[in-house]
Amino acid sequence: MNAEIIGIGSELLLGQIANTNAQFISQRLADLGINVFYHTVVGDNNERLKQAIEVAQTRSDLLVFTGGLGPTKDDLTKETIAGTLNKQLVYNEEAMKTIQAYYDKTGTPMSENNRKQALVLEGAAVLRNDNGMAPGMALTENNHTYMLFPGPPKELYPMFTNYAEPYLLGQLKQGDTIVSRVLRFFGIGESRLETELEDLIDQQTNPTIAPLAGEWEVTLRLTAKADSKEEANKLIDETEKKIHARVGTFLYGYGETTLAKEVFSMLTDRNWSISTAESLTGGMFSQEFTDLPGVSSLFYGGVVCYSNEVKREIGVSKETLEAYGAVSEECAIELARSVKAKYKTDVGISFTGVAGPDPSEGKDAGTVYIGVAAPTGEKVVALNLAGNRNAIRKRTVKHGFNTLLKLER
Amino acid sequence: MNAEIIGIGSELLLGQIANTNAQFISQRLADLGINVFYHTVVGDNNERLKQAIEVAQTRSDLLVFTGGLGPTKDDLTKETIAGTLNKQLVYNEEAMKTIQAYYDKTGTPMSENNRKQALVLEGAAVLRNDNGMAPGMALTENNHTYMLFPGPPKELYPMFTNYAEPYLLGQLKQGDTIVSRVLRFFGIGESRLETELEDLIDQQTNPTIAPLAGEWEVTLRLTAKADSKEEANKLIDETEKKIHARVGTFLYGYGETTLAKEVFSMLTDRNWSISTAESLTGGMFSQEFTDLPGVSSLFYGGVVCYSNEVKREIGVSKETLEAYGAVSEECAIELARSVKAKYKTDVGISFTGVAGPDPSEGKDAGTVYIGVAAPTGEKVVALNLAGNRNAIRKRTVKHGFNTLLKLER
Repeated sequence: MNAEIIGIGSELLLGQIANTNAQFISQRLADLGINVFYHTVVGDNNERLKQAIEVAQTRSDLLVFTGGLGPTKDDLTKETIAGTLNKQLVYNEEAMKTIQAYYDKTGTPMSENNRKQALVLEGAAVLRNDNGMAPGMALTENNHTYMLFPGPPKELYPMFTNYAEPYLLGQLKQGDTIVSRVLRFFGIGESRLETELEDLIDQQTNPTIAPLAGEWEVTLRLTAKADSKEEANKLIDETEKKIHARVGTFLYGYGETTLAKEVFSMLTDRNWSISTAESLTGGMFSQEFTDLPGVSSLFYGGVVCYSNEVKREIGVSKETLEAYGAVSEECAIELARSVKAKYKTDVGISFTGVAGPDPSEGKDAGTVYIGVAAPTGEKVVALNLAGNRNAIRKRTVKHGFNTLLKLER
Repeated sequence: MNAEIIGIGSELLLGQIANTNAQFISQRLADLGINVFYHTVVGDNNERLKQAIEVAQTRSDLLVFTGGLGPTKDDLTKETIAGTLNKQLVYNEEAMKTIQAYYDKTGTPMSENNRKQALVLEGAAVLRNDNGMAPGMALTENNHTYMLFPGPPKELYPMFTNYAEPYLLGQLKQGDTIVSRVLRFFGIGESRLETELEDLIDQQTNPTIAPLAGEWEVTLRLTAKADSKEEANKLIDETEKKIHARVGTFLYGYGETTLAKEVFSMLTDRNWSISTAESLTGGMFSQEFTDLPGVSSLFYGGVVCYSNEVKREIGVSKETLEAYGAVSEECAIELARSVKAKYKTDVGISFTGVAGPDPSEGKDAGTVYIGVAAPTGEKVVALNLAGNRNAIRKRTVKHGFNTLLKLER
């Protein structure tokens, strides 16, 4: 089954919003094993939408429409589809009740054009809208499946997951259960990860293995189909074992986690408190860490030591700054050690380096030192990062979290 | 001139990224008065891209392609377009130099497939890539204009603005010069701004006034057409004067500026140095400020004072913490005053509050105090912000910059 996602709305063509609905639906269809070969966007225009439907019918089995189901005269998706398929629009009782309930709740009178939202394609299955008024629709006819969704993501997303996916699984005529697991890696590039796993990615079909580059990290999504959840998970476990054997050293977590979250739970486990001394990163590490609710239990604070005077004030010796400079292994470790002592924490971490664009102290942009003073010892990580100022700082922070994750117990 | 934007890349069809390039280009084309009637997305597949081009040729004058200009064998945009137009691909010296320079800088050897990126369509104008390797292209032939852009937004955006727009203005064969001016506002919501300016926005056609909501700020883009740049600017000046009279107090800058940049230039003008004490924001203000190259001349450093011990260590009195708590006007001003003294700067700014989701010290999430100690006096701004943790922190930082901008000389 090959799919095409057709977004309808002038706001997309004017660039007022991005087509995130197509992104969401593409992800979900990929998980169901349905290929998406085209996205199309047209405006609220009957003639152009009609042509887009005709083009899509020649090349796609599943046509997914988003937007244009609202009450105004601009909204013409179902009217146009009805015209193309020679169908009537009929009132749906259930949908009418939802709309009436909305007006009863808000206490505002319902204007006549809102009744239009309860019209559905004759013969279509109605997909309930739990977060708005316009119902979705699904219709299979002449080897094509047509699915219509409202545009607002908060209405579309749950409708898709709760009502459209079961409909599609029915169409696919599979009893299959589909399970996905996301593996997160840091410290290995997407191309190297793909190279290391090339044969697995190419040969495996159940589970499928899909790599995705994130912001300075890489994820793998393993998706298995089986008769039961247990069986699907077993298939995924087996493949994960093979992946572990090759690139397990770069794996840091599963699902919606982040390096910062993993560090938070690692520090919590060990009952270690932490403080920071940030020169290069100017507060970025602390900011990212404190984005997590509850870290105040173990993150006491930090110093943004941008000037050498502030570095001196924390405890870096004059001799170190003179002999090695602020961008040095020596300065990094003194910063980590000093801030740990000053704020009486178990761990101190420091960042010094050159963010660029210009060199500093004769060192090129991208020269980075991360210092860590922990109960189990001290260490300095030296890095040479490419990219602009923002990229260098962001990657440095990720390396900082990763360095903490790798600390010995 | 009717345009179609064709995005190429399996990552779009798999839902790994949203098509934000189409959004960006749509906005810019709208400013130039060019109608965008279609967005299309196809995968890295020669046959399907070829068909998409053929469909587009029947319905659009301007075909804008994004993605698929990279070095791997997946990247086939220009090869497919060359095939469709019966054109050769030829080496471009300038592009080859850019690619070579990149490898010289990083010191890594260039693999042969990278040379492929220097191939351009025979007869095309080359659009320089200031942030990457693959050049863009523009070619007009048989009443169609073809423009090719690399997929990464950081390469595409400046290329479009700096090199593609001038090309398009030439193609539009207008005596008209189009001039845009972007006005940036903080402290007023989009809907209120629109209400205040409703009659102007509705009635004015030259310049047009287009509001756009950004991240906790609003911009207005004024776009005028005239015979000369001077005349267009004069039209914009007149409209801007009317806007000033109504909402000028919220205007903080023009074009690609940010609140942080405006603060940097304000502090530079006055020769004021600054330091920070961040509790609520956990380093976010410092991080955003130090994202600007060169701020080390006046930003000495700061303290991320997450725990009360660290607040005490900077100089907040035990009495203040006991009597008023850490989330208080009193604590905010003591923090600002103390950090200013400790780091010997002209200005000290502090942030304390409740990011949530839970209340703290009996105060609700969104309770925020910003303290400023400046050569011209001290002040505290008290805010009550809605939103989640991240939203509260981000808006607080923006308010911090805005508070500094409003300081008396």
